[in-house]
Parts: sequence; C-alpha cells; structure tokens
Amino acid sequence: MSQAQATTASSGDPVAREQDAYREQLASDLEDFLGRQREVLLDVSEESVPLLGAVHALSKGGKRMRALLNYWGWRGAGGEALGAPAVRSGLALELFQSAALIHDDIIDRSDTRRGAPSVHRHFANRHTDESWHLDSDHFGSSAAILAGDLCLALSEEAFTSVGDRAGYATRARAMFNRMRTEVMAGQYLDILEEVVGPGHEPERAVLRARNILRYKSAKYSIEHPLAIGGALAGADDELLASYSAFSLPLGEAFQLRDDVLGVFGDPGVTGKPAGDDLREGKRTVLIAYALSGGSDAARREITAGLGRPDLDDDAVESLRGVIEESGALATTEALIAEHTEQAFSTLAEMAVDAQTRSALESLAHAAVTRTA
Amino acid sequence: MSQAQATTASSGDPVAREQDAYREQLASDLEDFLGRQREVLLDVSEESVPLLGAVHALSKGGKRMRALLNYWGWRGAGGEALGAPAVRSGLALELFQSAALIHDDIIDRSDTRRGAPSVHRHFANRHTDESWHLDSDHFGSSAAILAGDLCLALSEEAFTSVGDRAGYATRARAMFNRMRTEVMAGQYLDILEEVVGPGHEPERAVLRARNILRYKSAKYSIEHPLAIGGALAGADDELLASYSAFSLPLGEAFQLRDDVLGVFGDPGVTGKPAGDDLREGKRTVLIAYALSGGSDAARREITAGLGRPDLDDDAVESLRGVIEESGALATTEALIAEHTEQAFSTLAEMAVDAQTRSALESLAHAAVTRTA
Repeated sequence: MSQAQATTASSGDPVAREQDAYREQLASDLEDFLGRQREVLLDVSEESVPLLGAVHALSKGGKRMRALLNYWGWRGAGGEALGAPAVRSGLALELFQSAALIHDDIIDRSDTRRGAPSVHRHFANRHTDESWHLDSDHFGSSAAILAGDLCLALSEEAFTSVGDRAGYATRARAMFNRMRTEVMAGQYLDILEEVVGPGHEPERAVLRARNILRYKSAKYSIEHPLAIGGALAGADDELLASYSAFSLPLGEAFQLRDDVLGVFGDPGVTGKPAGDDLREGKRTVLIAYALSGGSDAARREITAGLGRPDLDDDAVESLRGVIEESGALATTEALIAEHTEQAFSTLAEMAVDAQTRSALESLAHAAVTRTA
Repeated sequence: MSQAQATTASSGDPVAREQDAYREQLASDLEDFLGRQREVLLDVSEESVPLLGAVHALSKGGKRMRALLNYWGWRGAGGEALGAPAVRSGLALELFQSAALIHDDIIDRSDTRRGAPSVHRHFANRHTDESWHLDSDHFGSSAAILAGDLCLALSEEAFTSVGDRAGYATRARAMFNRMRTEVMAGQYLDILEEVVGPGHEPERAVLRARNILRYKSAKYSIEHPLAIGGALAGADDELLASYSAFSLPLGEAFQLRDDVLGVFGDPGVTGKPAGDDLREGKRTVLIAYALSGGSDAARREITAGLGRPDLDDDAVESLRGVIEESGALATTEALIAEHTEQAFSTLAEMAVDAQTRSALESLAHAAVTRTA
C-alpha cells in the first residue's frame, strides 16, 4: 500500500486509495502480461518486437476509465478488494480499447493520440527517419493494422486468462463477445454515415447519430465494462439491470461530451488538433443538431467544410461559430445534463455499498465534465 | 450422409467420404454461427449487416486446408469421426484465415481474392456505385479494417465455444494464442522486409525470407491447425512432436509453392493477376534466391521492378525470365522437393491409423503441387 499512499491527492480518501492501488496492480499486470508476449515475439525475431512496443507505449497511457468501471462493477457485486479477476479483466478492456484506438486512428486519419503520434504515424515516421524504401504512409498504416490486430488478440487472451469466471458460456464472456461485435458494427455505421450522411434529411441524422453513439461508444466505454466486472463477481439480474440503467445514459452523456470536445476542445488539453472531428467528417449528434436546427446558410457551410482534411484554424473557428449559433451546442449540453441526471438518480438507488457508490459517482462526474 | 454421397468424386473412398461429410458440417456450422451473429448486428442496425456479409462471402469459399488439417490432427489423436469440437475449431481456423486475408489484402493492395473483389475493393466499389460522398478507397479500406477486426473476434469466439477442451490453460488454447501472435509478428517482418530489404546483402535476404515464411505462413497454415486438432483430442507429447516434424517442412514447402505461384502462376487458375507478388514488392525466398544467385544486371532489374504497382504484363514477363535464368526457380523447386520428401518420410512413420495417414498424404500432396 505504500506506493498508493505516496499519491498525495488520495491519501485521505479510502475510495481513492483503493483505486490507486488497483491502478498500480493494473500497471504491473500490463508489464507482466506484455513481458511474456515479448518472449513470443523474440522467438520469431527481435525485429518484430517494435510491433508489441507500439501496443505497450499506447496501453501504458490513458485514464483507465474502462478498467475502473469494471473494477467497481466487480466490487459492487461483492468481489474482493483488488481481486485478480478484476485486475486481469481490466487489462483486457484497456487492451481492447487500445486496439480500437489504433485502428480508429487509421480510419480517422488522426495523427496524434494521447498527445503523442498515433501508431500509424509512429511507424510512418520511423520509415521516414530511417530512409526506408517504398511509401512511408502505406508502411505506417500497414504496421498499425497489424499492431491493432495483435492488440485485439491480446485483449482476448487476457480476458480468457481470467479463468473460469470468464470461460465459455459464462455471462461475462457473452458480454465481452457482444461488446466486440457491437463496437465494430457501430464503427462501421459511423464511417458509413460520413459518406451517406450528407444525402439524408437532417431530422433523420439526429436519430442515426444517436444510434451510432450508443453502439460505437456508450455501451462499450461505460455500460459493458461495469456489467462485465459485475458478472465476473456473480452479480444477479437485478443488480445488472440497475448497472445498465445507470451506465447507459452515463455512456451517452460521456460520448456527447466527447462530441463537444471534438469540435470545441482545447488542443493543449485534449492532445488532439482543434476541431479534429470536423476535419474527419464525423457526423456526430452535435453536428446532426446543427444541421437540423441551423439556417440554410449554416447547413451549407457545415456540409461544405465537414470531412475536408485541409480545414485550417480559421475555418474551424468559423464552423464553431455556426454550430454554436444553430443552437446545437446548447441542445447537446442539455442532453448531457439530462442523461447525467438520469444516471445519478439511478446510482442513488443502486443496491451497492457506500464505497462503490462513491467511486461510481466520481467516475461518472469525471466522464461528463472532462476537458480531454 | 446422402449429400456426401452425392459428391461423386469421393463415392468410392472412405477418407474422401468422411472428408466431404466434415466439409458439409463445417459449412452448416458456419451458417449457424454467422446466423447468430447476424442477430447481434440486426439489433444494432440493419445497415451494419453488410460488414458481416463481407466476412460471410469470403468465408464460404476457400479450400478448407486448415480446417481439414485440424480435423485429421483430431482424428489421428483418437477424436471421434465428425466430432463437434473438430468442426467448431475448424470454423475458428477458417475465420482466422479470413481475418488475416482481409487485412493482408489491404496491406498488399490486392484487389482480388478467390477470383472476386477483395473486401476493401468490394466496399470501395459499393461506395462508387452508390455515388457516396468523400473518398471511395479510404471508405473501402476503413470498412475492411473493421470487417477484419470483426472476423478476428469471431474466430476467437468460435474457438472458445469449443468448450472445455479449448478453455484457459489448455494446450490447444496456448497453441491458438501463440499462432495468432506469431502470424502478426511474421506479417510485420514481411512488410518490414519490403521496405528495408533492398538495403540488405542478398545472402542475408535468403535467411530472412525463410524466417518470415516460417512464421507468417508455414506454422499457421499447416503446423498449428494439425497440432490444435491433435491437442483438442488429447494427443500426447510424442504424437504432437511427430505432427510438427511432418507439418513444419510441409508448411515451408506449401509457402514456397505459394511464392512460385505468386510470380509464375496462371491468373486464370490462381484468381489473382499475373505476377502479383512482384507488384506488391514481396521479398519472398524465391526473390531472395534470384537476388543472391543472379547477375548484377538481373539484380538491378529485379530491384527496380519490385514493388512498382504499375508493372505491366510485359515487365512481369521479363522479370519472370530474369528470375528463372538466375536459377532461383530451380533452387526453390528443389527446396520444395526436399521439404516435401522430409514431410512424407515422417508421415510414413507416424503413429496414426491408416485412414488419417491417407488423408494427410492427400492434403500434403495438394498443398505442394497446387496451381492456385
């Protein structure tokens, strides 16, 4: 416990202390798990190790929101403090998130992630620095496809190594499987919307964007981690239902906050360029509201700018103004507030101990008020 | 058995009859398994179903070599005829192969697969046909990244659903995990070699190409499927060792045959354009021999042509001549013959029943003499 106590911010609060101790175990489990993988890659060739290195560098970072939700889902269902299954399943969820980010960044042409070059950019840079042959960008995205595949396989390997609680035909396993399929389906809808969206009625766009948000992010970022932790500890139907009633609106609020940050976020805080979502052509709920609520001129300006990789800071600034004037920002903030309130009122009634409730309150608060 | 008997080619031979019956069960298991997945995607949105459709279309085809090796590995270790674990693990291996092909084709910029458009090309074509917005090629490769991810996750889901024999800490599971990591590491070495290879000494290139061939293909196409089938049926160490002694040289011969077909194959039979490997810049063992054995002029011509996406048929024809003259084709064929002989002599001594031996003989023969 001595390292946890060294984290001064948490020294007085038992929830924060336990959470710090969990994070430490997670960090050490990540090193152990990837360390063993490193041996497999070394057997193939030392030159293959950078593939795992990219997974490692990315997975060391992050806020661990999914792992922590999984942990408190476990604790709320009676799992023991710092239980090994909750550490290992947290690792699996963080690796799944890394895999999704690696491939997402190729798809979204995002060059930065967590303030550093994204994985495809890292490999492309290495190609350029070493003056290798053929095309840097193609090498970068090819290597990142493989790094994401490796990370996806490792995520499942970690989940399976939880043991019997995550074995075939367990509830936790069924959730893990459904989570993966839903995320990939949701991401497909997301890229489909970027290319078919401009042809749709603005009113329909809001409904579609909310469905994408739910499957692509809300469920897997918030609902599934909490539920998987609960299921691993043997939560009953009633508790799992109350977990969902809390976590699904929270997940929607979380992703809506992400949508707002993707357009209005401060690059110094988010670690991504200003207005990145606009350049990527993301048809988020925020954008859908702007299209349905804005003037004809606003709609034209948004449609013309969205998805243009060369949008400069002035164009981003102008689009921000248009989106704000359309009322979309206020509508989105109201929706975040509504979902958040729903989540908190469910949490107040949830049949969990005081410590779990307090931890989930903090996590929920951080998820919807974050600036990065 | 009536459908199996309808396959006239196999009617007289008990091995071929059993194999046909296995193929049918595999085909029907694929439909069941993906049919259940379809329900998950329909819950997300009907519009997400084409993602699974692409996986389905690809996975219906193929020669089922990996599934069959897995099946005879199972049978040779005493597993019952048409046993459900061997059907399901065969499905898992075929889905893993599909996932690898989907991402490979993006990486290799291959537009055709099994005589049809590759998955990224299929989605890009759909984008063009429907006159959707933004970039067709980027949409195509993005959708194929997601389809490959879905397929990779489904492969593992299928493997886990084998049940206890494939559970955590079983030998079969450990092999399945190692297979995935090795393939991804091997593929990374393959793309690395394309970009760093031109700077290497030709002699070193042969060693490197043979290592890549082993991990990227030989082990996962031949050795691991046979071993996983054996492990699922409880094969002992001795049998598994003889499986490897047979299957690793066979796998190397198989991939060397693939290298030859990638340059000298008949497009009408392979379903891929003539000389596709040359255009992709593949640094295969065949190419490595050509570089190390050819004249300076030959080396220059090969180095200049390799990896040029715009190589036309005349240039391919000329490179074929250079490679043949260098002695590389003859050396590669000799290596194929040597590995094949090693495999067959091990098989003759292997402690398996006559039916399994006969089946493995046929599969081995097909693997090294194939024309597609």
